[in-house]
Amino acid sequence: MARVGIYAGSFDPITLGHGDLIARSFAFVDRLVVAVATNVNKQPLFSVERRLGLIRETIGDDERVEVRSFHGLLVEFARQSNAGVIIRGLRAVSDFEYEFQMALMNRRLAPEIETMFMLPSVETTYVSSSLVREVARFGGDVSPFVHPSVLAALRQKFQES
Amino acid sequence: MARVGIYAGSFDPITLGHGDLIARSFAFVDRLVVAVATNVNKQPLFSVERRLGLIRETIGDDERVEVRSFHGLLVEFARQSNAGVIIRGLRAVSDFEYEFQMALMNRRLAPEIETMFMLPSVETTYVSSSLVREVARFGGDVSPFVHPSVLAALRQKFQES
Amino acid sequence: MARVGIYAGSFDPITLGHGDLIARSFAFVDRLVVAVATNVNKQPLFSVERRLGLIRETIGDDERVEVRSFHGLLVEFARQSNAGVIIRGLRAVSDFEYEFQMALMNRRLAPEIETMFMLPSVETTYVSSSLVREVARFGGDVSPFVHPSVLAALRQKFQES
Amino acid sequence: MARVGIYAGSFDPITLGHGDLIARSFAFVDRLVVAVATNVNKQPLFSVERRLGLIRETIGDDERVEVRSFHGLLVEFARQSNAGVIIRGLRAVSDFEYEFQMALMNRRLAPEIETMFMLPSVETTYVSSSLVREVARFGGDVSPFVHPSVLAALRQKFQES
Amino acid sequence: MARVGIYAGSFDPITLGHGDLIARSFAFVDRLVVAVATNVNKQPLFSVERRLGLIRETIGDDERVEVRSFHGLLVEFARQSNAGVIIRGLRAVSDFEYEFQMALMNRRLAPEIETMFMLPSVETTYVSSSLVREVARFGGDVSPFVHPSVLAALRQKFQES
Amino acid sequence: MARVGIYAGSFDPITLGHGDLIARSFAFVDRLVVAVATNVNKQPLFSVERRLGLIRETIGDDERVEVRSFHGLLVEFARQSNAGVIIRGLRAVSDFEYEFQMALMNRRLAPEIETMFMLPSVETTYVSSSLVREVARFGGDVSPFVHPSVLAALRQKFQES
Repeated sequence: MARVGIYAGSFDPITLGHGDLIARSFAFVDRLVVAVATNVNKQPLFSVERRLGLIRETIGDDERVEVRSFHGLLVEFARQSNAGVIIRGLRAVSDFEYEFQMALMNRRLAPEIETMFMLPSVETTYVSSSLVREVARFGGDVSPFVHPSVLAALRQKFQES
Repeated sequence: MARVGIYAGSFDPITLGHGDLIARSFAFVDRLVVAVATNVNKQPLFSVERRLGLIRETIGDDERVEVRSFHGLLVEFARQSNAGVIIRGLRAVSDFEYEFQMALMNRRLAPEIETMFMLPSVETTYVSSSLVREVARFGGDVSPFVHPSVLAALRQKFQES
Repeated sequence: MARVGIYAGSFDPITLGHGDLIARSFAFVDRLVVAVATNVNKQPLFSVERRLGLIRETIGDDERVEVRSFHGLLVEFARQSNAGVIIRGLRAVSDFEYEFQMALMNRRLAPEIETMFMLPSVETTYVSSSLVREVARFGGDVSPFVHPSVLAALRQKFQES
Repeated sequence: MARVGIYAGSFDPITLGHGDLIARSFAFVDRLVVAVATNVNKQPLFSVERRLGLIRETIGDDERVEVRSFHGLLVEFARQSNAGVIIRGLRAVSDFEYEFQMALMNRRLAPEIETMFMLPSVETTYVSSSLVREVARFGGDVSPFVHPSVLAALRQKFQES
Repeated sequence: MARVGIYAGSFDPITLGHGDLIARSFAFVDRLVVAVATNVNKQPLFSVERRLGLIRETIGDDERVEVRSFHGLLVEFARQSNAGVIIRGLRAVSDFEYEFQMALMNRRLAPEIETMFMLPSVETTYVSSSLVREVARFGGDVSPFVHPSVLAALRQKFQES
Repeated sequence: MARVGIYAGSFDPITLGHGDLIARSFAFVDRLVVAVATNVNKQPLFSVERRLGLIRETIGDDERVEVRSFHGLLVEFARQSNAGVIIRGLRAVSDFEYEFQMALMNRRLAPEIETMFMLPSVETTYVSSSLVREVARFGGDVSPFVHPSVLAALRQKFQES
């Protein structure tokens, strides 16, 4: 039976670090759901639709990947997606503490779903969506960190404002 | 002379992890003041009155415990309460850094008051008020983490909205 | 094609925490090689043969698991075993730092092999082989942390001495 | 050629910990630009002008120091200021993680500029601007942590409100 | 009933940081057992007898304190001493991880005994027995960190060799 | 007046990460003493003379650098070398804790000497001398991490044994 994984986040916007993790995930799973969480309160930079589109453009055609948005508990969405594995990237110590807490809570809520952690490539270990937004906002060059489509979207966004 | 401790927080809402720490604290103190801090800016889920009530229902009748709210500096409230010991729970590394900073500041502001740290039970080490709120908001089952009264209050709150 | 994972360590002796991780690993892999590293300089408590035996007794009959010893680089042994995934358990922050360093080095030495990290069950998060040895050495009860065969082996070992 | 350093932050308000770091920095640089970042979204306690003034009063007359505000990317402002060195104070682990991420990003954006980290004096290791604001807001004594001018400014500010 | 605490370690040799913690501990306990662990394998600098003596000289006459050595499990010795509280000092993150693991193991071995953590004075936060030994070995001045009796003992020890 | 820095370690052997830090250090200092500490108890892989030689071959001709061995306290050797700055590389959290402790002790022993911390290049962040030794010992390829002279020395060393 095919192993299905789920990789969730805000992806506001997707970075090449995310893309690297998605590519590596197929060492563990046969299919991957990339899931944009829409219940975060804070004002995102890009709309959900735009974020889904930028994910698809970054990944390219890959029939093993499904890109979707969800609202509510991740473990519920994982169950609906028949995903048995939650995939998380680990960057730093403070990351790890929060991730540990979430993973144990999710195990309690859905014991049949396992969480696994992967390391990003060393070149992207310091790249996060929020840092990319901050640098792009002030005109810094983020082309090494995002797909050209995301770069164009960021430029347009910050010219508008 | 009786040793008086103070255990302060937002308790929005109280969890069984908090309850476990309160019960364990009597290894060190004879009386305990559970103190709900009311000066936090962010919008709480429950009113101060409701939080005080849910603490009392979680703890049950225990004449060694006094449940109160306070505004201002914790060390000032500790002095007013004749408490010589500030009790804190430790969960994670990031917790510890902030706690360390606060404890050293409090020692400077009130050298006669000591801060001590306790470990929660291993079963509640990943349970926090904010995680409980987040899971309950989306209909997840938080009954293993809170008292039945808190569970009912959470259900009512999220049905309202 | 079957996914093969490798889970390496000293296993001196295997604990129920290790056993828990082995059981969970089948969410990600079809077959697992449990690999006892024999190149560590320090004097082990149990011989390699004994450690292999205690692993087999702890796991029981499971044709998906192969228990072997190895000498040299883990990535080389992984290649010989056709394993594409190195599985590691994560406990604490200091663990994580060392694990991060090893995983990046192993990725450089063998880019085709991915490392993934899992969380042990919360009940075994504080149990390590070295702590089990230390407690058993002084007659403490380690029966909640190891298989009965390991318990018997520890008792015999420390009665001898 | 003179070495120029840049030390940036919110300085809302400057503490004696900041002052200590500025004094120590001349072990490494000949001139120092103290740079108040003005692009942070959150509502500051003091206006930029006031923060610049309080920095000048805390440091006193020192022709090696230039106090300025800036908007945008720190590395751009460093380039405009001919600064080859970004100086950062390190306090805690969570500090370090964020600092690590920023320093690597800044190295990528401006490879000719190095970031270096210093330790504050042990007496100020637990003092931050936000903690000073929080204590002063509730009437606690912050005189050991700030210059008398900052103390007066804090008292005036919180009497107003 | 009197609360009895236990504060265990190698104390090779006792530092003023240890002394500070012992003095502070009476905020929580009525009597304190300072317990020199003798089962550590590595070669100590001072004999157990000498370490006991240096502890007594550092603390001075205090009938609330009992200084003893022990062999075996700390929780067993705590039970024999009627101590209900294990007191630990916390310095750093890596400290904390190990302490967390030990405290949870000890809770499992002896649920009636609680572990509590205290912060050392900020002036001694970077002083450890091993660092004192290392500095004294090469003739560095450790007089700010140890009692004069310990200073004399260190000087004698390193002149001998 | 020229700023002199000191960069001390075991360098057993020097890696390209060390070399990267040495090159970057000239953003802060005019001259650098690379100092091989010889008082470590544990058995080194290379003799002091060999380590000094491999450092010189890795760095190449650079009249700003002086390569020396020392015995005793680093701050004493720094004073003898007229170095006002101790330079340290930071890799991980556990690194940081130890480094923090050492830097505060050194500040106490020699207040006129400052310690500063630098980040290694992201490509070498996971490379340490001990990891290089471990990989080389088992025939792994360490050519991306060390100078060709060090590579040759490692090969010769492990063929001998």
